[in-house]
Amino acid sequence: MCGIFGIYNHRDASELTYLGLYSLQHRGQESAGIVSSNAERFLSKLGEGEVQEVFSKEDLIKLDGKIAIGHVRYSTYGASDIRNAQPIVVKCSKGLLAIAHNGNLVNAKILRNKLEKEGAIFQTTTDSEVILHLISHSKEKNIIESLKKVLPQLKGAYSLILMTPTALYGIRDPYGFRPLIIGKLSNSYILASETCALDIISAKFVREVEPSEIVEIKDGELKSYKFAHTTKRSLCIFEYIYFSRPDSILCGQSVYNVRKNLGKTLYIENPTEADVVISVPDSANSAALGYAQISNIKFDFGFIRNHYIGRTFIQPKQKIRDFSAKIKYNPVKDVLKNKKVIVVDDSIVRGTTSKKLITMLKYAGVKEIHLRIASSPIISPCVYGIDTPTKKELIAANYNVEEIRNFLGVNSLYYISLKGMIESTNLKEENFCLACFTGDYPI
Amino acid sequence: MCGIFGIYNHRDASELTYLGLYSLQHRGQESAGIVSSNAERFLSKLGEGEVQEVFSKEDLIKLDGKIAIGHVRYSTYGASDIRNAQPIVVKCSKGLLAIAHNGNLVNAKILRNKLEKEGAIFQTTTDSEVILHLISHSKEKNIIESLKKVLPQLKGAYSLILMTPTALYGIRDPYGFRPLIIGKLSNSYILASETCALDIISAKFVREVEPSEIVEIKDGELKSYKFAHTTKRSLCIFEYIYFSRPDSILCGQSVYNVRKNLGKTLYIENPTEADVVISVPDSANSAALGYAQISNIKFDFGFIRNHYIGRTFIQPKQKIRDFSAKIKYNPVKDVLKNKKVIVVDDSIVRGTTSKKLITMLKYAGVKEIHLRIASSPIISPCVYGIDTPTKKELIAANYNVEEIRNFLGVNSLYYISLKGMIESTNLKEENFCLACFTGDYPI
Amino acid sequence: MCGIFGIYNHRDASELTYLGLYSLQHRGQESAGIVSSNAERFLSKLGEGEVQEVFSKEDLIKLDGKIAIGHVRYSTYGASDIRNAQPIVVKCSKGLLAIAHNGNLVNAKILRNKLEKEGAIFQTTTDSEVILHLISHSKEKNIIESLKKVLPQLKGAYSLILMTPTALYGIRDPYGFRPLIIGKLSNSYILASETCALDIISAKFVREVEPSEIVEIKDGELKSYKFAHTTKRSLCIFEYIYFSRPDSILCGQSVYNVRKNLGKTLYIENPTEADVVISVPDSANSAALGYAQISNIKFDFGFIRNHYIGRTFIQPKQKIRDFSAKIKYNPVKDVLKNKKVIVVDDSIVRGTTSKKLITMLKYAGVKEIHLRIASSPIISPCVYGIDTPTKKELIAANYNVEEIRNFLGVNSLYYISLKGMIESTNLKEENFCLACFTGDYPI
Amino acid sequence: MCGIFGIYNHRDASELTYLGLYSLQHRGQESAGIVSSNAERFLSKLGEGEVQEVFSKEDLIKLDGKIAIGHVRYSTYGASDIRNAQPIVVKCSKGLLAIAHNGNLVNAKILRNKLEKEGAIFQTTTDSEVILHLISHSKEKNIIESLKKVLPQLKGAYSLILMTPTALYGIRDPYGFRPLIIGKLSNSYILASETCALDIISAKFVREVEPSEIVEIKDGELKSYKFAHTTKRSLCIFEYIYFSRPDSILCGQSVYNVRKNLGKTLYIENPTEADVVISVPDSANSAALGYAQISNIKFDFGFIRNHYIGRTFIQPKQKIRDFSAKIKYNPVKDVLKNKKVIVVDDSIVRGTTSKKLITMLKYAGVKEIHLRIASSPIISPCVYGIDTPTKKELIAANYNVEEIRNFLGVNSLYYISLKGMIESTNLKEENFCLACFTGDYPI
Repeated sequence: MCGIFGIYNHRDASELTYLGLYSLQHRGQESAGIVSSNAERFLSKLGEGEVQEVFSKEDLIKLDGKIAIGHVRYSTYGASDIRNAQPIVVKCSKGLLAIAHNGNLVNAKILRNKLEKEGAIFQTTTDSEVILHLISHSKEKNIIESLKKVLPQLKGAYSLILMTPTALYGIRDPYGFRPLIIGKLSNSYILASETCALDIISAKFVREVEPSEIVEIKDGELKSYKFAHTTKRSLCIFEYIYFSRPDSILCGQSVYNVRKNLGKTLYIENPTEADVVISVPDSANSAALGYAQISNIKFDFGFIRNHYIGRTFIQPKQKIRDFSAKIKYNPVKDVLKNKKVIVVDDSIVRGTTSKKLITMLKYAGVKEIHLRIASSPIISPCVYGIDTPTKKELIAANYNVEEIRNFLGVNSLYYISLKGMIESTNLKEENFCLACFTGDYPI
Repeated sequence: MCGIFGIYNHRDASELTYLGLYSLQHRGQESAGIVSSNAERFLSKLGEGEVQEVFSKEDLIKLDGKIAIGHVRYSTYGASDIRNAQPIVVKCSKGLLAIAHNGNLVNAKILRNKLEKEGAIFQTTTDSEVILHLISHSKEKNIIESLKKVLPQLKGAYSLILMTPTALYGIRDPYGFRPLIIGKLSNSYILASETCALDIISAKFVREVEPSEIVEIKDGELKSYKFAHTTKRSLCIFEYIYFSRPDSILCGQSVYNVRKNLGKTLYIENPTEADVVISVPDSANSAALGYAQISNIKFDFGFIRNHYIGRTFIQPKQKIRDFSAKIKYNPVKDVLKNKKVIVVDDSIVRGTTSKKLITMLKYAGVKEIHLRIASSPIISPCVYGIDTPTKKELIAANYNVEEIRNFLGVNSLYYISLKGMIESTNLKEENFCLACFTGDYPI
Repeated sequence: MCGIFGIYNHRDASELTYLGLYSLQHRGQESAGIVSSNAERFLSKLGEGEVQEVFSKEDLIKLDGKIAIGHVRYSTYGASDIRNAQPIVVKCSKGLLAIAHNGNLVNAKILRNKLEKEGAIFQTTTDSEVILHLISHSKEKNIIESLKKVLPQLKGAYSLILMTPTALYGIRDPYGFRPLIIGKLSNSYILASETCALDIISAKFVREVEPSEIVEIKDGELKSYKFAHTTKRSLCIFEYIYFSRPDSILCGQSVYNVRKNLGKTLYIENPTEADVVISVPDSANSAALGYAQISNIKFDFGFIRNHYIGRTFIQPKQKIRDFSAKIKYNPVKDVLKNKKVIVVDDSIVRGTTSKKLITMLKYAGVKEIHLRIASSPIISPCVYGIDTPTKKELIAANYNVEEIRNFLGVNSLYYISLKGMIESTNLKEENFCLACFTGDYPI
Repeated sequence: MCGIFGIYNHRDASELTYLGLYSLQHRGQESAGIVSSNAERFLSKLGEGEVQEVFSKEDLIKLDGKIAIGHVRYSTYGASDIRNAQPIVVKCSKGLLAIAHNGNLVNAKILRNKLEKEGAIFQTTTDSEVILHLISHSKEKNIIESLKKVLPQLKGAYSLILMTPTALYGIRDPYGFRPLIIGKLSNSYILASETCALDIISAKFVREVEPSEIVEIKDGELKSYKFAHTTKRSLCIFEYIYFSRPDSILCGQSVYNVRKNLGKTLYIENPTEADVVISVPDSANSAALGYAQISNIKFDFGFIRNHYIGRTFIQPKQKIRDFSAKIKYNPVKDVLKNKKVIVVDDSIVRGTTSKKLITMLKYAGVKEIHLRIASSPIISPCVYGIDTPTKKELIAANYNVEEIRNFLGVNSLYYISLKGMIESTNLKEENFCLACFTGDYPI
């Protein structure tokens, strides 16, 4: 999971990229980077941590030029290394290239092995580097022609922003796993993971980059190319459930509305009466609110979330009950005491955090806990870019709902149905990748 | 506005102080400091920024000893200077003393002038330093006797935590403007601004420090002393409205509940029908929810708040419409478009931020805006520690409600009544300082 | 030991102070600070480490105003605390004052106790704070009158630079233990510890501040006042031997020349023939060269010094022979192998470093080692500002020369005579404090 | 110019690499990096600045494993980019590889272009990356076989340390432009640029890596391979004149001694009588001393060098005469005034710094200046790794000695003869690369 942003033809290109990345910060706090092009040279600054930690005013001044791309990275695979920070810049047969990538290739290892056999060297563990190798190895001199040859070789999820010294490219895989949108601000074009990155700079939403599409922004114009037939759309449904900001619009659907629908569906599918509906903030807020509205059960803020937590927080030696949950959430006892509570969460992965939150609720004196999950049971790991654990660690892959309920110690547990989850998006099933719920991988 | 914390008799004293300050971070992000006592020496670490930025693991190890106090500071008066960071440590006639102070003295200037005339030197612009001077100048050798002589000279708001090499003191002014509570964790005593600081370390709430009370924690015991008669309680009502965390309990009242009551009262006093109730997050969330529940109008999240903003955010040169509001809030268009909207905010100070938020709502396509304010019009500056501007800048001190409504460009504007605001707390009027609404200062 | 600098009437006051402190960096690397006055306010920046680490370009811009003072501090008494960084700024009966102090008061403790009894509070462990207290307590309204009352109370070593919002003061104790000089650059006046601080900004040397003198720079003019009779000058002879930079001029004598004289005298007093003369760099370089020139024995660089060592150097867990010396010095084997070597060092304090250097020379294959010390045996600790250890740790206070020679394992050991040391300075004995060699303290 | 270090089979491998790099710091202050191997994984830490700035204690603990290599980099070509920091780590057909490189390939551009045409991508502008590409592209599976194929393709200067998860390789080009030595510490092998890196960790010097040699340290043993015939040795003579530390031994010759010989030769070739011989410290110290010893003219320290200067020094806005020289050097007036001075410097490149130093000497009052240069006139840029400017900027490439003398404003100027320079090393002409003096490039 990452956030990507690009802007073409703006004299404050790197500054607006900074703002765009700031608004996409929820998509990754591990590292951040901006590369700008002043037509002749690429300027680059990368660092570990949040956007604000990485860039100084002086940095933004140095990153001159009218084109810029940026990236915020979510740590996957535990490997936090500045070498893996993006965008990656290379010099190759196609000249200078910079790339920012969101997604995960399933054939990265095969491609790497093949490329390594041919002599390629890899300096990062990112898939972006694989893509650059392929572009560089392609015989075609023209970037578009080259991309048309290379992209069909990639299996998996990729939303890409590619920069040459004078042009910007937006690319989305044939399945459209990860979002990528086009915006406009006067005569400048913008590419970004989410619409909220347009809002912050007062840019207008134009449209999404389509699956299998290459958008080329060059010589002041935007041209569109197709590099493959799109047989099946496979948007990651977790973009609606968890990843995207609720104020973003995705495939024409307000993320906020979809989340509320998820909550509504949870009630409709399994109507449970209670004293109060609470959420695990912030990602389940809208779903909980939807549940409350349809059920006419009172919505309340049952947990207060501390937003000051960051990368450098020092874990106490001193053993404190349920500390890892407590550092982020504190229950509001007055809301909970002696209450029959509906708790809405977005998902259960390993079940360990849920367990701690449940314990906290019990200490706060709840009478009954009815846990409602706004996504179906996750039984298969994601291979397209979400940092899910192995099947062995996925609680729903190993236990049935009753066993999980028992483990968590709640009075009832209900997961939204697959059908209900999809319907909540107002989009058809064929639009989504549902592999983590079904084990049927699109690729 | 500051957050203070102290702990007595715990081998991980500085570590628990770190956690306590982390949970009080909302009370100040300007600077943070911890001073510990290992019975012989004081160890001290201060720095600018949030708790996580200031302290490293190594720092906490160095801050050894079984007693520690800490402070987070909200920048008042623009003067951001490491010299003003607290706790302040001094060596004086009473030996080593460290002090952490929350509040503001109204006679600080007079006391300073008097002390300066007597030869005192001031190295900070904090009131804490004035208090230490008085303690040092007092003839009494015993700390309690000294405090009994000194504290009556102080006019204004002060909740204090004082540390000697072997004891901890909690002090609250005779009016009780600012909160201060006592907690316990096994054999350790805790003093803190709010109960949420007890929750994070799994400590138990014992009671509040009373106005005019000195609590002495020494030789393993807690003793209580009175240094004045308390004629009139004057808790700052903004602790309920804005400052405290909603999961804290203050004077026996859940902050969260009081905020919901404020919202309810807003509706009862001025029932307005609409399509949706939204809040300016996060401080007005509970009030908006209360409004929605009593009115049966749908509550929705109309603004999404970006929590990644910090001290080091770089303002763009590039001019962006309503930027200063936008950097923190983004409207959820689907919730707002063509809707008649009740917007609940906690207060209006200058009116400039409100104006920008209103503009953002209009861009998002709202039909009508009915602004509801969960505090009465602020017509007088606070002299007890809140960073309010001068009377000239307070919009309600200079314009009537209709003029403000017109300036903000909303369809209607309603402030909660003084009576309604007080009743929402379930406490009597005589418990509060209402100076900023009435101009009648308790001192 | 500290370095101090002040400048009056220059639009780049803080920038020139930065340069001045940079050139005085050898006098202290523990902390650095600059305070500037823009006539109305004092601006201040302090930090741990070297000048370059503490100040950013942005800091210097913020430190506006046409008067500025600065300080670099050598860590004494182990207490490295940002609270002890100078200059100290206070607000008191005399208004705003900033002070930078080089030296050590012998009656600081008595004065502190007295002041504490009168109610004064101390926030640092510096003597500067004591002086400010006395100034503030003095009845006289005029600064000069006040200083005339206060300074005679101080016993010990002090060279002070004092700043008010519109004036600069240079003060030197009646004994003149520590240097302080006056310079001029166009219409700006400069005060500094050493002349090398004038050289770097191309300022001209005017004269020294005299013992018992207060120099007042105000309204564009320099006026001189005497606050005491100077009975006996007591310049610290170690300013010549070790502290000052060799390119500085002190009391009309080139430090470099004096050091060469010390070396010459060493030979004249105890002529020893050998193959080569080497120094312990850099402080003994000139003395060794002087020895070589008078004796006609070849001078060579026997040790190469690594200058990259700093505060943050990580000591290895791995045990390495003579590591603490080796990290700074490496012998040049070709110079040393099978040679009869004269080693010139500036002093022996505990003897531990000398011992390690001697071992390194032996590993390098020297045939004979004749150690020559450019200062007489130190038998008494300094109470005027040098960080010497207690008498118990001073090797020459506990052992005679033969015993020390034996301990160090050298073929011969010779300390310069007191008389010879003094004569090397071209100044009379009555000019110096010789307490560490004689135990006779001037005060 | 860079410094490289590697260690095999030591449980504190990264710690000793830290010390080794610290002792090689004079070879580059731009960036530093260490990569360790714990047999399974490579751990890596890179950063801008000096060794002490880059690594924390925690970093060294994380860099576990018994093999480690390190690199300090001198900024060449102005491009200061963290991406160019070394060692570079790659995953390729040969598995994991890390490389540290000192030198410069003359056919790097050709190789790059060729590789780029074949599809290779370049993420840095370093030659090391080219070498890794070639290794990876080679068909041979065995590293030694692969190196034997790859290395002959490289034209130019390279001393390399290569690490695989379980082995260490030291490689030197067939000309031996840059030094590389082998050391031993108990059962651990060491590779380093200079012998001073052995001294600091008390390791023993074994021998130099020979031109055209690959040293393989694997399974506890050191094996030697030849990959080419060495036709002509071409050691960079500036290693003796300027780069290496004087306490290092290079090709059996003490750098210190060679420098002294250079000074002696300068006198013998052009005997000039004067009052005093001074050096431009520190690199010309030994040469100046040699000049003084042979001529019997007094050696003195005419300039004092400030070692506190670093990367973050803030240049003053305030214009100061000869500032760029003054920030580093200050003349000792007493040594210079009214004197006929021999000034020995190691080289003249552009002539601008020399000009400023000469101006400073004149301000200090010298009577005559006779400038003596310990290297012959540089008329051609170096293509093997030294950061010399273009021919157009090389003063000796464009003006004759008399013109340069005139430009510098000195009474006489003498450059050592090529023959004299070579003879000073005690090695034969055929051992050296003299391209910068003759324009005859070995390759």
